[in-house]
Amino acid sequence: MCPPGVLRHVHQALSRRDLFKLGAGAALAGAFPAATRAQAARTLRFANLRVAHVQDLTHPLSPRFPVFPAYEPMRVTKLFDVEADGFFANRWDLAEHTGTHLDAPAHFIANGVAADGLEPESLLAPVAVIDLRERAAADPDTALGVDDLTAWEAEHGPLPDGAAVFLYSGWDARAGDARAFLNADAEGTLHFPGFSPEAAAFLVSERRIVGVGVDTPSLDIGAATRFDAHVAVLGAGLWGLENLANLGRLPPLGATVFVGAPAVAGASGGPARVLAVWS
Amino acid sequence: MCPPGVLRHVHQALSRRDLFKLGAGAALAGAFPAATRAQAARTLRFANLRVAHVQDLTHPLSPRFPVFPAYEPMRVTKLFDVEADGFFANRWDLAEHTGTHLDAPAHFIANGVAADGLEPESLLAPVAVIDLRERAAADPDTALGVDDLTAWEAEHGPLPDGAAVFLYSGWDARAGDARAFLNADAEGTLHFPGFSPEAAAFLVSERRIVGVGVDTPSLDIGAATRFDAHVAVLGAGLWGLENLANLGRLPPLGATVFVGAPAVAGASGGPARVLAVWS
Repeated sequence: MCPPGVLRHVHQALSRRDLFKLGAGAALAGAFPAATRAQAARTLRFANLRVAHVQDLTHPLSPRFPVFPAYEPMRVTKLFDVEADGFFANRWDLAEHTGTHLDAPAHFIANGVAADGLEPESLLAPVAVIDLRERAAADPDTALGVDDLTAWEAEHGPLPDGAAVFLYSGWDARAGDARAFLNADAEGTLHFPGFSPEAAAFLVSERRIVGVGVDTPSLDIGAATRFDAHVAVLGAGLWGLENLANLGRLPPLGATVFVGAPAVAGASGGPARVLAVWS
Repeated sequence: MCPPGVLRHVHQALSRRDLFKLGAGAALAGAFPAATRAQAARTLRFANLRVAHVQDLTHPLSPRFPVFPAYEPMRVTKLFDVEADGFFANRWDLAEHTGTHLDAPAHFIANGVAADGLEPESLLAPVAVIDLRERAAADPDTALGVDDLTAWEAEHGPLPDGAAVFLYSGWDARAGDARAFLNADAEGTLHFPGFSPEAAAFLVSERRIVGVGVDTPSLDIGAATRFDAHVAVLGAGLWGLENLANLGRLPPLGATVFVGAPAVAGASGGPARVLAVWS
């Protein structure tokens, strides 16, 4: 890393032959990592962690990703180019609530905990997936209610302490089409599923969770005129995740989620890399 | 989430009494999550994962965080305010190589894999920490060499397949002071530790790693006039992490790192949330 002038010189000095001498780094490109990855996919063994499945729950983020009406889409500007400068780098200009992203308590709560203030322990959690896809397909205004939580528990047992509770509505399939994803009617009211205020209140008061997530653009349903689910979750100092992807690939229980929340000081949230693992 | 006008109304409608009725979300703020976290700190049990330690390896990112001379510091602009708008959100303007961040192959390699193209499996890795702090304190131009890798292996055994190899130089303690962190001399040459080109080449050709990391601003040493360590690692399709924090708190072997790499389409890298766990 260096100012462009220096790098241009460096790039010219670094011939293909140099690359080859450097442990055949360039020659191995593609082939070696592919082998590593194939092996990794079979079994990842760490100290005490056996992982058979790694599932990305993150949408690729780009200027085309749909944003809530309050925000403008992300802008990406190229700063440097491999050919011209020896290296490639962009600048980003984006609102914190863009793409698959975290809501920190500070998003709705004055003096609430910001993104960088969340305890690292709360970013690692057993995941409960509540499948509302069938109801969401029939009624985009459907909300995850207390009954859905108790029905899930009747089938899978009590929500684990420290759980992340994710609402799977199937909405991630619409993310490529902003109109379908936000699903506004003629009056501008949005229509997509979310948590009911009662379910959010139940989770923060009757269970010991660390956060909630949705595959839609908002913790509250799109047609909500208040933001009670947001306020219940964030008001309890917990986190929310919006625009999650691929929740349908997770087991209802048994996966562990890593929330790669942004560590931006004082942030109300921000794009997050979210991965789930299970055995 | 909604345009400001609507939210202002909503915010006014949502009285303290409403908050209390919502499962005492606000009343519980602080107290409840603290209890959850205290419990989490004692033992985090998932499907097959026992975690006694969760260590954040990420510096808080802000406009004050030192950036490489090629880039400008991050800018943060407040878009909405809880008091005025009912919710709080910022906009960020930042170069991809800001804060604790990922270098994707595309950063130095034309048509290399971008940040969003890295295999999710490669973002979860057993960590080897090579402690060079003593030498770095005596000589900021010191480089991690092949001898350091073989010495580490003599003590801890072969580098695990799929490992992330992190250089711990103690440089993270300087991150609050841009001058000390970049450590430029009168001619503008930077002085901080990094990987030697030979060590980088050895790792990608003789071992099966997924990536490397440093607690300094660059994979190559600051005084390097070429970027051979970058090119060796990124040319092999692997990732790099720069500006890591708290590597001194990890065991030399036994931790698993989760790299919350940005999923920005086509990115050369970007700020990453990096967490390590071990039992």
